[in-house]
Amino acid sequence: MTTLRDIGEDALIARLVALVPRDPEPAAGPGDDCAVIDPGPIHDTLHLLKTDALVGGIHFLPDTPARAVGWKAAARVVSDFAAMGGRPERFLVTIALPPDTDVTWVEDLYRGIGDCLKTYGAVLAGGETSSVPLKSAPVISIAAIGSVRRGQLVLRSTAQPGHTLLVTGTLGGSRHGKHLQFTPRINETNWLVSNFKPSAMMDVSDGLAKDLPRLAGASGCGYVLERTALPLSPGSSVEDALGDGEDFELLMAMPPEQVDALLAAWAGVFAELRLTVIGHLAELGIGEALGGGWDHFAARD
Amino acid sequence: MTTLRDIGEDALIARLVALVPRDPEPAAGPGDDCAVIDPGPIHDTLHLLKTDALVGGIHFLPDTPARAVGWKAAARVVSDFAAMGGRPERFLVTIALPPDTDVTWVEDLYRGIGDCLKTYGAVLAGGETSSVPLKSAPVISIAAIGSVRRGQLVLRSTAQPGHTLLVTGTLGGSRHGKHLQFTPRINETNWLVSNFKPSAMMDVSDGLAKDLPRLAGASGCGYVLERTALPLSPGSSVEDALGDGEDFELLMAMPPEQVDALLAAWAGVFAELRLTVIGHLAELGIGEALGGGWDHFAARD
Repeated sequence: MTTLRDIGEDALIARLVALVPRDPEPAAGPGDDCAVIDPGPIHDTLHLLKTDALVGGIHFLPDTPARAVGWKAAARVVSDFAAMGGRPERFLVTIALPPDTDVTWVEDLYRGIGDCLKTYGAVLAGGETSSVPLKSAPVISIAAIGSVRRGQLVLRSTAQPGHTLLVTGTLGGSRHGKHLQFTPRINETNWLVSNFKPSAMMDVSDGLAKDLPRLAGASGCGYVLERTALPLSPGSSVEDALGDGEDFELLMAMPPEQVDALLAAWAGVFAELRLTVIGHLAELGIGEALGGGWDHFAARD
Repeated sequence: MTTLRDIGEDALIARLVALVPRDPEPAAGPGDDCAVIDPGPIHDTLHLLKTDALVGGIHFLPDTPARAVGWKAAARVVSDFAAMGGRPERFLVTIALPPDTDVTWVEDLYRGIGDCLKTYGAVLAGGETSSVPLKSAPVISIAAIGSVRRGQLVLRSTAQPGHTLLVTGTLGGSRHGKHLQFTPRINETNWLVSNFKPSAMMDVSDGLAKDLPRLAGASGCGYVLERTALPLSPGSSVEDALGDGEDFELLMAMPPEQVDALLAAWAGVFAELRLTVIGHLAELGIGEALGGGWDHFAARD
């Protein structure tokens, strides 16, 4: 028997998407942060769709405050809309919980979701509740629909060799609590797409070691990473920055001739958030394998 | 401590939706089969959103064929679009599975989802994979977006006292396997909304005992149920028909003066599927409590 642990997450997804009918001409590749629906050329606005899930024992622990779990569940999805240059508008929340769950815990979970929706101007449109068997892990699954202006959509697949790689904020440290307190970079991305639209962008959710090769690969590029340039969270090593995951910072590519102007303008608008050059895209085939990063089905050390 | 088992599913949902921002003027109530997005009066088409989940040990068992689980996961969602008079178009599939899950099982799950999407002309737009801890129940969460023509939208909340209640097919028997083999009534509902638009409609997913009071309540009505008129699945009692759940038949209300013409036309188009008068809506307050039906968090007998 071959198990999910044997093949890992990316190989699993590649196998599965071949088994179901898909959009013959998708506006974004199947691995991008959100699915994109183009309602037709007369419309200036595209729809974005995203689904995500948090699992007890994986993404949060029994003693994690429920309100923080709720914030995280919703903010992860907001971050994916940010990565496309858009905004989330309506959320669907599915909870699958053991029947002995404390009602207060669930109410706090929803308060945390509500905190995030209020902050980013979104609403709850619907949901579903289910039980799971006693002792099973709770699952919170969130889907959302939003929008992006046609000219502001940023994909992972549209950068070119030579484009500069930049990342917002600092990397590493999610294991020390950052994964519950992050700020989705939606204000930053909405400024970017109006002023210095990246040639490609994604959010760093599984660690730069996993996500940088994904962005480069989607654009048909290799990459050169300057490890010494990585912006490290306090107490984090280069290995942490590459592998911890759940940074929810933006990784973007920019034509190199725009980078100086971008950095100068950025410093004037977002004085408290770093924007750091960490390398550049290269011809396909260039790029060392980066150890680390999160695979849901990999065997743990 | 008050647990979910103590308060039950409907009370839980009522508490939770008060804790998050919601659409101030929703086109459908929070309890309807799908959420409705109205893109504005110049548009003839409304968007529909739905999320649903299947949980191992609750909705299927370890020996349930994975392809049947996949069909059921997607077909439940199709049934909700049918209940609004619309059609699903794009699906998002989130799977949360233990790392020791057989890859073949997951592939068969997706083949079953694919069977359903092909049958109803929908596509997979995106998804997410997560692990759950070993021994935890697998969860399959599906969200979908679709559409309905503005004039064909059917809500639960728009029937009136005196309207006749009808149900498609037969009720009961889900515990004997019907819950894996049902046909979402989407062809029937698309014919209905073009020819005899119901004054209210929903799909029967938690059993008539739970769902009839919900439809009546959403319309501000009571109800009179003719138990002896219930169309029973082979081997099912009236109690089974009321309480088994997972029938995925359509429950609808019709102005009484249209019922004879509807039944005559129906028999000509859908010769193999029964459509049965089971009672009528009444003034609010009329209607016996109906024992049975599925509550996810209720203590089991």
